Amino acid sequence: MGLDFSILQTSDAGGRRAQLVLPHQTVATPVFMPVGTAGSVKAVPQDIVESLGAQIILGNTYHLYLRPGHEAIRRMGGLHKFISWPRAMLTDSGGFQVFSLSDLRKVTDEGVRFRSHLDGSSHFFTPEHSMDVQIALGADIAMAFDECTEYPADRSRAEQSLRLTMAWARRSLDHFRTHRHKVPWHYELGGATQSLFGIVQGGVYTDLRRESAERLVEMDFDGYAIGGLSVGEPRELTLEVIDAVLPLLPKDKPRYVMGVGYPDEIELYARMGVDMMDCVLPTRAARHALLFTSEGRINIKNKKYAEDQCPLDPACDCMVCRRYSRAYLRHLMQCGEPLSATLNTIHNLAYYLGIMQRVRTSLHSSPASLPRGPSSSG
Amino acid sequence: MGLDFSILQTSDAGGRRAQLVLPHQTVATPVFMPVGTAGSVKAVPQDIVESLGAQIILGNTYHLYLRPGHEAIRRMGGLHKFISWPRAMLTDSGGFQVFSLSDLRKVTDEGVRFRSHLDGSSHFFTPEHSMDVQIALGADIAMAFDECTEYPADRSRAEQSLRLTMAWARRSLDHFRTHRHKVPWHYELGGATQSLFGIVQGGVYTDLRRESAERLVEMDFDGYAIGGLSVGEPRELTLEVIDAVLPLLPKDKPRYVMGVGYPDEIELYARMGVDMMDCVLPTRAARHALLFTSEGRINIKNKKYAEDQCPLDPACDCMVCRRYSRAYLRHLMQCGEPLSATLNTIHNLAYYLGIMQRVRTSLHSSPASLPRGPSSSG
Repeated sequence: MGLDFSILQTSDAGGRRAQLVLPHQTVATPVFMPVGTAGSVKAVPQDIVESLGAQIILGNTYHLYLRPGHEAIRRMGGLHKFISWPRAMLTDSGGFQVFSLSDLRKVTDEGVRFRSHLDGSSHFFTPEHSMDVQIALGADIAMAFDECTEYPADRSRAEQSLRLTMAWARRSLDHFRTHRHKVPWHYELGGATQSLFGIVQGGVYTDLRRESAERLVEMDFDGYAIGGLSVGEPRELTLEVIDAVLPLLPKDKPRYVMGVGYPDEIELYARMGVDMMDCVLPTRAARHALLFTSEGRINIKNKKYAEDQCPLDPACDCMVCRRYSRAYLRHLMQCGEPLSATLNTIHNLAYYLGIMQRVRTSLHSSPASLPRGPSSSG
Repeated sequence: MGLDFSILQTSDAGGRRAQLVLPHQTVATPVFMPVGTAGSVKAVPQDIVESLGAQIILGNTYHLYLRPGHEAIRRMGGLHKFISWPRAMLTDSGGFQVFSLSDLRKVTDEGVRFRSHLDGSSHFFTPEHSMDVQIALGADIAMAFDECTEYPADRSRAEQSLRLTMAWARRSLDHFRTHRHKVPWHYELGGATQSLFGIVQGGVYTDLRRESAERLVEMDFDGYAIGGLSVGEPRELTLEVIDAVLPLLPKDKPRYVMGVGYPDEIELYARMGVDMMDCVLPTRAARHALLFTSEGRINIKNKKYAEDQCPLDPACDCMVCRRYSRAYLRHLMQCGEPLSATLNTIHNLAYYLGIMQRVRTSLHSSPASLPRGPSSSG
């Protein structure tokens, strides 16, 4: 068993509150997933990430494959044990980072050859290899190996990229099904396995997105992601693609929009029926002084906060807003103190996770409620 | 009232367990004081520093004077409020950093002119100015403005430096006594004031150290520090100086050795009768992969820890050793993850604070025990 997904309520707008049972955690959705690139949600100890209410975090396959290496992580019992994170995890396929971080990429139908951004060493990733790496890492959810279509991409480029992604999805799924029992915790968790999500691509072309979704649904993945968004396109297009694709995905399986977004975006998408989202924005922005509050965005470096003794967000009850002033947070940033990244990140994550908590609560009291939905077995 | 110091037990070796009542915290001594240079124990949130059992932390006057500025801190109610640290604090005089960090120093009898290491701006520090800055910061304990004699220093250089330090001690004390009521929390804490410690200098010349101690004791400070150690001299000389100076200091006042040391050193000095110590070593070494354990020092970058799933120190029950493996700590360091500094520092501080806790416990059960000692009013 990979996952069990039970819809508890839906709203007229299409939003749904559900329970996603994964081998390491039962996740209440809609859910925001903090990014823990190299096995750490940057600058925040695991116990604090837990106390913030994070139910599932991401690991990046590309980074963990390069360092410390997936076989080392397998030998240590998988990613959960290695980083001491007992709750759920998801790994991406490595594709996005291969395309955004590495040098000298050469893409063929077979796979992609690239050079490590760390030491220039040469590596070859195929859908099968991505599956092997992700099975060794052992996150609860793995992602099919895809090519993230860049923006802008003309129609013929988007078509070509989509063809590749669909062929790779098929190969990812076949390889995953054959080898998923090799996940490090398979026997320890009573025969549990990972789940595999397919990724809808197709750029900003609605008909290509439709073709992509239909072909993936035919393959019968455990869940479906919408990829290739937040790659530079205007927000209206992001929304348009999500709006077009969501109705094409099975109602009874989790739907994941990758790499979004700003606070108002994640709230909007969750209310439209997106179940899962991840983004580096709250953590990365925090390290660069951009903080999200109920009163809007704050650049904590601004001189006007130099003697501001108010909490960062007076409406927030996170451990940072309860204890520290804007003046102190500014001081830490000005001095380059490492505590700056830690406190800023804690607040931004609290803010993002709080949004999802409020959406779940409002869906809970939504008048249009459904009986318990059908469950899927992955 | 600045402080109340009550000796609870002494050992034959001269060690003593005491209670040091300060305006913000009653401190059990012997005590190790983590360094929080710019108002942060680097990389560790205040609540964790508290949970580790830190009773008193240091702030560096030089850094806080330059950024955010002592007047800004005074306007915000003092350092305790600014950094949200409710327990005790001590500030150094700024002298050590003026001599070690700044450029173009020019020392006269009046004071020292220097350029900021941050922006090259010119500043002039006198004993009176150091007192004004420290009173504005409002730590529980302030230090007299001194010149930290370098090592090696020949006898005439050490004599000249000592003369300066003694004249500055007198001026520090006079100015402090006149102005100490201006500390930001004076009225809020029912008329409480800071305490001022004098600093014994004299290089490695025992007779100069004696002269320095005798003259300071005559001035009647609230406590006495031994400065000018850990500046490059061999350990045997450090020990020799401490051993020579301790008997010259009043038994009923706190004795503070500045800037020491390695774990075995702080234990040794505490057992000899040193009540207070501070050092950047546990925090700075942590950020550079050097970790202290019951099994000796560990360089966590070492390849042999790559798949070592043991806790850093199996005998330690700190939050790092309870949760994370050596392999993970090595991985964080290898990847330059900011969490590395946080977890390493937490462990090293737990180790240092644990040593002092054990020394206090062993003094508690020491057979040679004294009645409650005389108390001093600062």
